[in-house]
Amino acid sequence: MFDAVSRVVIVGTGLVGASVGLGLKRAGFTGRVVGVGRTPATLETAKRVGAIDEGTADLAEAVTHDGKLVVVVCVPVGTMGEVFRGLAPHQRRGLYVTDAGSTKLSVAADGRRYLTQPQFFVPAHPMAGSERSGPEAADGGLFRGRPCVLCPHDDAADDAVSAVRGMWEALGATIHVMTADQHDKQVAAVSHLPHLVAVLLAHTADDLGPLGLASTGFRDTTRLASSNPPMRTDIVAANAKPIGEALDRLAANLNELRGLVRKGRTDDLLDLFTDAAAIRDAWLDGG
Amino acid sequence: MFDAVSRVVIVGTGLVGASVGLGLKRAGFTGRVVGVGRTPATLETAKRVGAIDEGTADLAEAVTHDGKLVVVVCVPVGTMGEVFRGLAPHQRRGLYVTDAGSTKLSVAADGRRYLTQPQFFVPAHPMAGSERSGPEAADGGLFRGRPCVLCPHDDAADDAVSAVRGMWEALGATIHVMTADQHDKQVAAVSHLPHLVAVLLAHTADDLGPLGLASTGFRDTTRLASSNPPMRTDIVAANAKPIGEALDRLAANLNELRGLVRKGRTDDLLDLFTDAAAIRDAWLDGG
Repeated sequence: MFDAVSRVVIVGTGLVGASVGLGLKRAGFTGRVVGVGRTPATLETAKRVGAIDEGTADLAEAVTHDGKLVVVVCVPVGTMGEVFRGLAPHQRRGLYVTDAGSTKLSVAADGRRYLTQPQFFVPAHPMAGSERSGPEAADGGLFRGRPCVLCPHDDAADDAVSAVRGMWEALGATIHVMTADQHDKQVAAVSHLPHLVAVLLAHTADDLGPLGLASTGFRDTTRLASSNPPMRTDIVAANAKPIGEALDRLAANLNELRGLVRKGRTDDLLDLFTDAAAIRDAWLDGG
Repeated sequence: MFDAVSRVVIVGTGLVGASVGLGLKRAGFTGRVVGVGRTPATLETAKRVGAIDEGTADLAEAVTHDGKLVVVVCVPVGTMGEVFRGLAPHQRRGLYVTDAGSTKLSVAADGRRYLTQPQFFVPAHPMAGSERSGPEAADGGLFRGRPCVLCPHDDAADDAVSAVRGMWEALGATIHVMTADQHDKQVAAVSHLPHLVAVLLAHTADDLGPLGLASTGFRDTTRLASSNPPMRTDIVAANAKPIGEALDRLAANLNELRGLVRKGRTDDLLDLFTDAAAIRDAWLDGG
C-alpha cells in the first residue's frame, strides 16, 4: 500500500524527521520528500544532508498533491495539536497522517480533537533516537531493527493503517500494534524511566563530589541525561501518570536495595545482581 | 623507573589482568609477562591472545626473578588478602606490588595486614572495565586515556611509587593520587552508583511489564547491570558505607523528582533536565 504513495511530507525536520527522509531515500522511495518547518536554516540543512527534496514553511503547499501521500508529524508532543489544526482543512482520502511522538494517548486525543477526518491518522512511535538533535545528526538507519508502535483507533481506515505501516516497515522498523494506553505504560517503563534514572544519576554523582574519576560506565549510564531537555519535559507532562507510577516502583526497589546494603546482606545482593543481568541478557537475546 | 623493571607478574588473568598484559606488549615492554592463576584454561586463553608469555599456578615460581619486577594483583577485592599472604614470604626491595581493585580502603588494609613489607605495595584502581569478562575480552587499549587512581601510604617507598606509576602510565592511563578514603567515596558516586542504578532500572522496568519496546536508551542505561554479579557483590561489601550514603542521596533526589512529576511542575522539571545535561556535558568536556 505504501507502494502507491508518491509523496511524503515531513513536518519538523529535526533528528527524527530528517532520519525518516534519509531512510526513505536509502530504501529506494522514488516519490518526492517535502520538509515543512518554521526555521529556514533547519530545512536547508535537511536538504543539504539529502533528507528532503525541498523545504517550505507552508504546510498547505506541501500537502497539495494529486496522488497519495503520507504526512509524518515529527514535532514535540506538545505542539502536535497545532499541526493537526493546520492539516485539518486539507484532509481527504489518500492523505494519510502519522507521527513520531513519544507518547500516544495525548497525541491520539489531539488527532481526534483537531483533525476533521481522524480515521486517516495512525499514531506511531518509532523507538529510536539519539542524545544528539537536529538534521545534521540524521541517520538513515536510525529505525532499522528498532520497534515502531502503531496505535490505530478502532475506526481507523484500512488503507491508512496499511500505508502508514508500509512506510515504517520501509524504514526497517519492527511493527508492534497496541492501544495508546498500553503504549504509554510500556514506554514509561522502558523509555521515559531510563532518561529520568540518567538525570538522577548525573545529579546525585555531582552532589557527592568531583566527577574526575568517572569513566565509561558513568558515560553510558548517564547518556540519556544529555537528551533535549524541552522535549523531555514535554514527554513527562504528556505521560505523567504512568511515569509517576514507574517512579513509585523505582523508589520501592531503591528502598529495598538500601536495606540490603545497610544490613550487609551479600547473598541477597548477589541474587539481585544476578537477576538484573539475566533480565537484561534475556532482553538482548530477544527473549 | 618502570624502565628498570624486567618482569611483570599478573595475578588473575581475567579481563583486567589480560588487558594489562596486552597493553604492556603494545606499549613495547620487552620484559617477560607471567600470568598466575588457578584455572589452566584461563591462563591458556591469556597466552593465546598474547597477554602473557607464560602461565603458572605457582606464585612463588612466578616471582622468582633476579631483576626488578612488578606484581599486579587483578583478583576480586574479596580475595586480595589471600594473594598478599602468598606474596609475603617473597617480598624484597625491587619487587613492587600493585593491584586493580575497585575499592581501596579494604585492599590497603589487607596489604598492611598480610604483606611483610607493605612499603613496596602501591594500591591502584584503573577506572576502566567492561560488562564482558575473561581474557578473551581483553583489550590492550582498555586503560588508554582513562583515570588510574594511586593510593600510596605515607610510608610507601619512592621507588615503589615510581615503578608502579610508570607501569600504569605506560598503559596510557592518567594518574590521580589521593587517599584510599577519598578514592572510595568518589568511586561510590561515579562508579558503584551507576551499576546499582542500572540494576534498579532493569528490575523496575521488568516489574512494570514487557520489555519488547525497549531500545538503545534502555540498552545503554542498563549496560552495567550485565557486569559480573559476584565481583559487584564483593565491591558493595567492601565499600558499603560510601555506597549506602550515595544511595541515600539518590533516594532524596528521587523523592524530589516524584514530587515535581506528581505536581506537574514543568518549569522545575525543565531546570532539572537542563542542569543534568550541563553536568554531563561539562564532565565530557573535561570540565
